[in-house]
Amino acid sequence: MAAKGMTRMLILGGTGETGSWFARYFRDKSFDVAVWGPSGKTGVAASIGVRYAADMIKEAEQSDIVLLSVPIEKTVEVIRKVAPRMRPGSLLMDVTSLKSEPMKAMIRHAHQGVEVIGTHPMFGPTMPTLMGQIIILTPAVGRSETWLPRIRSLFESDGARIELLDPEEHDEIMAVVQALTHFAYIGIGATLQSLDFDVEKSRKFMSPVYEIMIDFVGRILDQNPELYASIQKNPKAMKVRQTFIGECMRLSEKADSGDLEGFKKIMREAAEHFGQTHDALERSDRLIDRRIKERGLERHP
Amino acid sequence: MAAKGMTRMLILGGTGETGSWFARYFRDKSFDVAVWGPSGKTGVAASIGVRYAADMIKEAEQSDIVLLSVPIEKTVEVIRKVAPRMRPGSLLMDVTSLKSEPMKAMIRHAHQGVEVIGTHPMFGPTMPTLMGQIIILTPAVGRSETWLPRIRSLFESDGARIELLDPEEHDEIMAVVQALTHFAYIGIGATLQSLDFDVEKSRKFMSPVYEIMIDFVGRILDQNPELYASIQKNPKAMKVRQTFIGECMRLSEKADSGDLEGFKKIMREAAEHFGQTHDALERSDRLIDRRIKERGLERHP
Repeated sequence: MAAKGMTRMLILGGTGETGSWFARYFRDKSFDVAVWGPSGKTGVAASIGVRYAADMIKEAEQSDIVLLSVPIEKTVEVIRKVAPRMRPGSLLMDVTSLKSEPMKAMIRHAHQGVEVIGTHPMFGPTMPTLMGQIIILTPAVGRSETWLPRIRSLFESDGARIELLDPEEHDEIMAVVQALTHFAYIGIGATLQSLDFDVEKSRKFMSPVYEIMIDFVGRILDQNPELYASIQKNPKAMKVRQTFIGECMRLSEKADSGDLEGFKKIMREAAEHFGQTHDALERSDRLIDRRIKERGLERHP
Repeated sequence: MAAKGMTRMLILGGTGETGSWFARYFRDKSFDVAVWGPSGKTGVAASIGVRYAADMIKEAEQSDIVLLSVPIEKTVEVIRKVAPRMRPGSLLMDVTSLKSEPMKAMIRHAHQGVEVIGTHPMFGPTMPTLMGQIIILTPAVGRSETWLPRIRSLFESDGARIELLDPEEHDEIMAVVQALTHFAYIGIGATLQSLDFDVEKSRKFMSPVYEIMIDFVGRILDQNPELYASIQKNPKAMKVRQTFIGECMRLSEKADSGDLEGFKKIMREAAEHFGQTHDALERSDRLIDRRIKERGLERHP
């Protein structure tokens, strides 16, 4: 039962990694949190110390906020079921990595009196706090005025930085920021396998740039493939992937044919487009210093 | 003139970035250092406080060590000129990123009495010291017994870690460690240009993984394209590049056709091959923490 005066919140997919992160977060904010998940993991709810919503529709009808944290494939289906049952004055949010499609569905299927805020936390569930993290919000225009200031200041009070974007623009930027980044790292991981390259042995001969790169390849391969596959479903990502493959082919042709001038020309043009490359070098130097210091500690404990 | 008892060293290409890093390093070790460079930059020698060798052949004849730090394209040509003039008991070294071809040339063109040690410092000239850095040595078998212990303990005394490799194996490992790493990052840089993607603006919407990745793209684009183009000349790199492009195409096909199961399968298999992915996740978490702390400092100075 919800205690009086507490904000009652239902997290759909709240037994998953991202969902349970938010369940703990809002529990700590004294929200009255219930979670629901498709596989009925009541144990997860118990371990977090929140309620498990056996009947998600009934819980949604009584909630002040419904937060969706289900895989992107299921998002629209769950919205269709739950959104029409929400009461006026409540808030429907999602934490999906894509925004155009879920926003359209939330706006369409919730009653006009229900507010809608798309949310994309730019961090994974391994982050301990919101300090220094970026959260992108895509609030529905004309349907977020009551809740937006509350949600925004809540996240900001924990040190998060809030950025507002239009859902379409969000997906366009994320096709590079997420889809291309992951795609390149996963491509490297698949290449190491295809070459039967000994990753552990190679650590003896690492440059710091390789060492950090290979850890990010491992980082992505260590996590839920579901999330990474779904990020590639971004409708704007296909063009980005194809451009990347095209540019790699162009670079490879130059290198294969010994046209080093051509290779250098592509690099110089890319550097010019990139802009502040020297700032990037300096920031990466600091990370490398950090990694080298850790390396020393690992070897001389 | 060389002071008595000092090790006399000539660095060919010692006016370049890497060469002058080593000129400063050996100067600080009280070596009597002379540098030579193809463009006659005597000012660089003066600013480091070492001699400039106007006549490189004459200087080589009187040197205890000749260290080659010229572009890979010029390495064999310079070896052919200089190596036959070196005196017995002296040492010929290079700091080229590839090892098979330079080692063959050094062994062939220097007299039998001249020792030969291939050197590949796994760091760039922006590193302040050798502490925690890896240096790969490819000593000529039977022709490095006098100098190898000296060179090795010198580098180790500054905290470098020395790894010994056969030249062929070195090039095979570096086709991944260096050539593939750089290739992927340069490919991303070229993609950002081709998409006319606004890198500065995207920083507002960064995930930490993207933020670090984009800084490494900028890091590589900020540096001398000559070095990066020459690393792609590694005879083992062509196969690696082609495998990478092939794997990216395979992944992209899965994503384009909506075969998320196929995409996840490639990820799972790559993870299995990779091995210790969770350790990689934890190391990358520490780098991300570091970056986020810096982010906070940048915003609230």
